[in-house]
Amino acid sequence: MAAMRICFIGDSFVSGAYDGECLGWAGRISAAARARGHDVSPYNLGIRGETSVQILKRWRAEAEARQSPQQEGRLVFEFGVNDAREVNGKRQLEVAQSLDAARTILASAIAWKPTLMIGPPPGGDQARNARVKELSETLASLCGELAVPYFDSYTALLQSGTFVASTKSVDGTHPSAAGYAEWARVIDAWPAWRVWLP
Amino acid sequence: MAAMRICFIGDSFVSGAYDGECLGWAGRISAAARARGHDVSPYNLGIRGETSVQILKRWRAEAEARQSPQQEGRLVFEFGVNDAREVNGKRQLEVAQSLDAARTILASAIAWKPTLMIGPPPGGDQARNARVKELSETLASLCGELAVPYFDSYTALLQSGTFVASTKSVDGTHPSAAGYAEWARVIDAWPAWRVWLP
Repeated sequence: MAAMRICFIGDSFVSGAYDGECLGWAGRISAAARARGHDVSPYNLGIRGETSVQILKRWRAEAEARQSPQQEGRLVFEFGVNDAREVNGKRQLEVAQSLDAARTILASAIAWKPTLMIGPPPGGDQARNARVKELSETLASLCGELAVPYFDSYTALLQSGTFVASTKSVDGTHPSAAGYAEWARVIDAWPAWRVWLP
Repeated sequence: MAAMRICFIGDSFVSGAYDGECLGWAGRISAAARARGHDVSPYNLGIRGETSVQILKRWRAEAEARQSPQQEGRLVFEFGVNDAREVNGKRQLEVAQSLDAARTILASAIAWKPTLMIGPPPGGDQARNARVKELSETLASLCGELAVPYFDSYTALLQSGTFVASTKSVDGTHPSAAGYAEWARVIDAWPAWRVWLP
């Protein structure tokens, strides 16, 4: 099996904010891959609060510093909730701005390394959920156009029940360790991830 | 208790290479601090294979991107084994080069945020251990001069027994999950860390 360095790039949901176990979904699916015998080196490049436009500015330099000639490089992105979040009554980014940033990020990514995208999750705020759902559908269309496998976290985690309930015990946005474990479980069962790490 | 974003900056021992649990010592001491009730957001900025000179070039931009006006920023460094490592029979950095890079890094760090330094660990290669021990003593002197608390991993982990034995089951350099847990245990008991996170 190939040795693999995977950069997980995105926002607080990537960094695992509020996870008592300090793993997030990225740490959990990496540990599960190691348990299956894969030599995976995860690099967590999630930053709390970042929008797609902020991620666009820094992801490439950070990911380049983490490559090695001895190991295959792979990229996994997740962002969107901060784009759709209202700060002082104003949405941080309109859908068209998110789409532009995501297109620039993903076009650069796929020309360089194999890439996956994880969509933004639902939370406890119904008005924001409607905006996240719309943005997730837009990101899914973009990924379809670019042939980037897209994991629809929004739908999967609404269906699961555990995830959204867990956000209510935290801050209404971020899941507990149990919520991150649920998210990791559904991503780990995703065929596009298992193509990389059977 | 203050909310805190802690950047853990360094090499493969920071990133937790070969840890089946994908936590490393940084993830484990962060989870332990959360279990004590602290609102800690860890950012793992370890990169496999990096020397002090490589870390010098990228740490500040990466750490700056991870600050927030809502949370205190803190810095924890660990590096040295790659400096002392021989590649094709040649030591990667002489002690004087490591000392220059470490001085530049730490002087910039302490002028900006509260800073701790974790020294490089022993491993299964006796000739390299002698070089790591000498470098660790040099880094300890530098930290004394700069008033940066320094954790002598080399001495603590040689004494523990578990750590070095665990590297022999991995690659002779990196510990297993049990070895990372041992390293985390001794750092977590270090008074300088507990001043930050009682």
